[in-house]
Amino acid sequence: MGSRRERVRDFSKKMMKYTVSFKPNDVAIRVDGGTNLLDAALAAGVHIDAACGGQGACGKCRVKIKEGSLDSPQTQNLDGEAYRQGIRLACRSSVIGDCTIEIPAASTGPRGLVAQILEMGRSDRRIADLRNVPLAEGWQLSPMAVKVPVRLRAPTAADNVSDLTRFSTALRQQHGLQDVVIEMRCIKAMPQLLRDSDWQVTATCMVDPLKIFEPSGTGEREPWRLVRLEGGDTSGRNLAVAVDVGTTTVCAQLVDLNTGNVLADKTVYNGQIAYGADVITRIVYAQKPGGAKKLQSVVVSSINYVIDELMEETASSKKDISAVAVAGNTTMTHLLLNMETRYIREAPYVPAASCMLLENAVNVGIDLPDCSQLYVFPSVASYVGGDIVSGILGSGVFQKEELTLYMDIGTNGEIVLGNRDWLACAACSMGPAFEGGGIKHGMRADQGAVEGFHINPVTLEPMLVTVGRTKPKGICGSGLISILAELLAAGVIDPKGKFARGLPSERVRQGRYGYEYVLVWAEHGDTGEDIVITEVDIENLIRAKGALFAGCVTLLESLSLTFDDLERVIIAGAFGRYINLEKGQRIGLFPDIPVEKFHFLGNGSLIGARTVCLCRDMLREVERIGKMMTNVELSDNASFMDKYMAALFLPHTETRFFPNVGRYLQENARVVAEARKAR
Amino acid sequence: MGSRRERVRDFSKKMMKYTVSFKPNDVAIRVDGGTNLLDAALAAGVHIDAACGGQGACGKCRVKIKEGSLDSPQTQNLDGEAYRQGIRLACRSSVIGDCTIEIPAASTGPRGLVAQILEMGRSDRRIADLRNVPLAEGWQLSPMAVKVPVRLRAPTAADNVSDLTRFSTALRQQHGLQDVVIEMRCIKAMPQLLRDSDWQVTATCMVDPLKIFEPSGTGEREPWRLVRLEGGDTSGRNLAVAVDVGTTTVCAQLVDLNTGNVLADKTVYNGQIAYGADVITRIVYAQKPGGAKKLQSVVVSSINYVIDELMEETASSKKDISAVAVAGNTTMTHLLLNMETRYIREAPYVPAASCMLLENAVNVGIDLPDCSQLYVFPSVASYVGGDIVSGILGSGVFQKEELTLYMDIGTNGEIVLGNRDWLACAACSMGPAFEGGGIKHGMRADQGAVEGFHINPVTLEPMLVTVGRTKPKGICGSGLISILAELLAAGVIDPKGKFARGLPSERVRQGRYGYEYVLVWAEHGDTGEDIVITEVDIENLIRAKGALFAGCVTLLESLSLTFDDLERVIIAGAFGRYINLEKGQRIGLFPDIPVEKFHFLGNGSLIGARTVCLCRDMLREVERIGKMMTNVELSDNASFMDKYMAALFLPHTETRFFPNVGRYLQENARVVAEARKAR
Repeated sequence: MGSRRERVRDFSKKMMKYTVSFKPNDVAIRVDGGTNLLDAALAAGVHIDAACGGQGACGKCRVKIKEGSLDSPQTQNLDGEAYRQGIRLACRSSVIGDCTIEIPAASTGPRGLVAQILEMGRSDRRIADLRNVPLAEGWQLSPMAVKVPVRLRAPTAADNVSDLTRFSTALRQQHGLQDVVIEMRCIKAMPQLLRDSDWQVTATCMVDPLKIFEPSGTGEREPWRLVRLEGGDTSGRNLAVAVDVGTTTVCAQLVDLNTGNVLADKTVYNGQIAYGADVITRIVYAQKPGGAKKLQSVVVSSINYVIDELMEETASSKKDISAVAVAGNTTMTHLLLNMETRYIREAPYVPAASCMLLENAVNVGIDLPDCSQLYVFPSVASYVGGDIVSGILGSGVFQKEELTLYMDIGTNGEIVLGNRDWLACAACSMGPAFEGGGIKHGMRADQGAVEGFHINPVTLEPMLVTVGRTKPKGICGSGLISILAELLAAGVIDPKGKFARGLPSERVRQGRYGYEYVLVWAEHGDTGEDIVITEVDIENLIRAKGALFAGCVTLLESLSLTFDDLERVIIAGAFGRYINLEKGQRIGLFPDIPVEKFHFLGNGSLIGARTVCLCRDMLREVERIGKMMTNVELSDNASFMDKYMAALFLPHTETRFFPNVGRYLQENARVVAEARKAR
Repeated sequence: MGSRRERVRDFSKKMMKYTVSFKPNDVAIRVDGGTNLLDAALAAGVHIDAACGGQGACGKCRVKIKEGSLDSPQTQNLDGEAYRQGIRLACRSSVIGDCTIEIPAASTGPRGLVAQILEMGRSDRRIADLRNVPLAEGWQLSPMAVKVPVRLRAPTAADNVSDLTRFSTALRQQHGLQDVVIEMRCIKAMPQLLRDSDWQVTATCMVDPLKIFEPSGTGEREPWRLVRLEGGDTSGRNLAVAVDVGTTTVCAQLVDLNTGNVLADKTVYNGQIAYGADVITRIVYAQKPGGAKKLQSVVVSSINYVIDELMEETASSKKDISAVAVAGNTTMTHLLLNMETRYIREAPYVPAASCMLLENAVNVGIDLPDCSQLYVFPSVASYVGGDIVSGILGSGVFQKEELTLYMDIGTNGEIVLGNRDWLACAACSMGPAFEGGGIKHGMRADQGAVEGFHINPVTLEPMLVTVGRTKPKGICGSGLISILAELLAAGVIDPKGKFARGLPSERVRQGRYGYEYVLVWAEHGDTGEDIVITEVDIENLIRAKGALFAGCVTLLESLSLTFDDLERVIIAGAFGRYINLEKGQRIGLFPDIPVEKFHFLGNGSLIGARTVCLCRDMLREVERIGKMMTNVELSDNASFMDKYMAALFLPHTETRFFPNVGRYLQENARVVAEARKAR
């Protein structure tokens, strides 16, 4: 809050970039004003013990200001004396100028190690850094639904044409909307509504995607359809919801169709997870009596719930939602639309439909006005769904000359290779591990999810940051990648994912289901028990990353290409705020090619869905992308299985795929061994 | 039934034309073989007493064969002796060759009168004579719904496109149907249906009228929509129902869309008549709480009932009905579609919509498969409805150069003037009199309705023919015209419609509600009471014909035209089999211009509705006709009221409008007076 002057000052500070130097590591990093110090350390690869996720509870992340200053309060864990001496809790401190920070010896990792790593050209990247996100280009705001005020003249004896004719004429004259198909519902409502509202109404018109694809529809005129008529001028309120229906989560954004602004963003679990972790088990369930109906109703409940959340956060009204654009994998969209999924699972794997589908949202049970339209992205094949089509649209892969590998990391791993001229795709079942599914303390990237992780390779003490800096509740995808990579580099686990024995830390222990590493002691967490990662969890993660990597190799080979031919790699998936590219490479999830080629998209499926909401011309591109894509079926592919088996290793059994990672791990092992010896 | 030879012989006889000469009148007429002798006499204007409607019960219509022979059985009313002498009942005799027939003196009218009348160039015309009916030309069978068999190849690993893509491709390759919009219902049904029916299905595709009107739809491709998918090959069964929803009756035809044949024809009362006789009282009723809903449901019940009747008569199944085309006046179609009718009645008389409307038939409550489409003809104005647009389409008025006056006689009298270049229209409330409504013994043109009537001007005995030659039950429209004209010519009523006093017949009497003429004594009728026409009935009929005629004059004058400018007059309306043009002129219902210019169309609204069922290209003409028509509002027109008052006279207060009728009535009065004196 604060005064205007204060806000201006705060804003100015945040717009600046400052250099933070860490002692004794001698590492410096440039960050935005206002960056949390723990985040800055994590980004710089500097270890500071931090056991409570950044909530200021454990008091372990004490640092000392050597030069400059930090915006940091005095807290319970920090007495006045310490505060006067320049001691601060890193997790409670924000960068407000150039500064030098000293980390107590007990809390830092081996000196020189991080510096060496940074020299190797590796650094963390923020997934949410929108300035670097690859997005579709060359489109203007032309929403799929427009709301326009229409002012009519009252009829007279000399001008007593029908209400419909009067309205259509005004719509054309005042807004240039021609040949608008008027739904019967609107025609019926017209006589009373026009008179009750004194001949001032608001028309909601949508383009009909079924018609936009037709050759005859390519003329200048758009295939408008009047779906709603309201009294008065409500044209200022025109919303849409973009939805990514994933196997594990349902992510949604509320979009203002008049401004193009994203008003809110919410994620909930897909209620179907109670009926199976992946699409195959869902299809099996759908074959049971009443099964398909059950799955349909629970996913609709999840959508309704996420929309309610969006409404609550923005104090918006559902009646202003003109459209919902849904992207999801083939099974998800078939289930949502009540379409048979059985033949998706049975060879030769045939989906019911592979075109943009349109329904009234209420027809499938979505709790919106009966004029709200539901647009469902087309699938390409049984295992290459509308989510990937949406991602390719949203990321603009189909517009660029560069040869791009697009990887969507979800319960279903989907891969696209190509550029503006051609697109090939493949899909592999990763399981929900990287979304926290099948992981003992896995969770979605929600408040309290460990999203950043670092380990002191000598003491094996963790540095962890949670979403929202709240008490740790579990681990989300980006956290899992970091944990796996850090445990591997510190030698806590071996390349097969097995725990080393006899390590000098009580955090590595024999648990109920085998060996495990304790990230958070019960006292610092929010769950009443220790938060751990187990050997079983690690197996699941290795299988998931192995499937994805094997898919990439198979797809490349089928086109006689190698990773070196790639000009860009786009990583999509509903991860948390941070994803660590180098750590993803270290565990063999991402290919070992120059980091400059990588781009993080975030939830590409959601971005594509939002794109069509904001730009109706993109509907035509959606159809074109669907038709461009050639599907490479992995399930029948013998070489895929071989490649999958070879990938069940950190980073991979074949060192040729990960030359840089191999060199790093070797060098790292040497430094760690030295540091341990020195201690 | 009979043997093939007999049927061939019967057929040959019927194909021949024969001359029937009547004595003592010395009138001859050429008729088709097989014509009923009473019909032949009626057509020739020869009076034969016939009191029972032609059922052979009263035995009054005895005639004697002078030359030739008749196909005529010996009946109860005719003993062997009389039969041997050549005496026959006219109503039971069919013409099978040239013949001369003598009518007993007691049974015939004044000699020479009829001959004079025939010399004046007048003759009866059959309304149902299809060879002379003016119909839209230049169209070929191209039904609004097509059913085509589609044979698919089962998918394989090498060809696993979606079911929808597979189907659409086959539809294009096998039938040239491109860019077909597939309804969600069909997409959902597809996976299971294709496999259950071993990849052989039948597709029902319809043109989308909402799209056919759009400029972009005028290309070569038609806007097809897949509305139904069935297993196997059912393409042989493709039906439509054309419906005229009138204020008083609902008429329907069952049409085979594959052959263009009319399979059956049925008429029922519009159940709404219980809630008001005309559109105004219906609209008033609709304003009451639940009123509109009630009216909607009863008219739908009538439609459902008439469809059931069509199904029963033809042993057809409703599931084969692809489409229903409905034409009706503006109020009827608004009520049917649940649209507000209030502003139709209130100045400035604005209907809700004036374009072709499309609904799923089930949505309005019509009991048909949920794929069946309901096409509703567009109205032009509040009192110029889709029935008139349909009639102009069906009659081809919009195609011809001749200046045509089109008169649709129903509860609402609708008039169109114009040709292929322009169309002007007007409507006036006639009330249901000519449909039998508000007439003491009025009825629809059903079995037992008096449809033909002649009076012996000396004895005042009637000659009457009923629909189906069954016991008289009441009087239908064509009967009412004849009765009025005959009573006028015989001097039973005066030009104001008042009964003459002191006539020498017990058939003219003071009844409960004033003077009346007894057509049928209770003993010969089917109702247990005498069937009469009252002075009140006659007043109603005069008001009805007066309104129509005043409308015609007003419309002509508004365009600076007179009746003499007309090149054609088309009479439409759901009359019985016969309508007598000369008699219609005599009472001032039809203008007094040469009979050669008249054409009887029958139910033009129904014919137009049938035409669009059979020829989808006509949908475009429907829209064009609606747009071409200029409405001349009569209700605000001061001169219309004057003209209406002037027309409340038989034939009219202004003799200039009916010069020939005037001369005839004068001459007739002289002959009748002489004949009565001679007796």
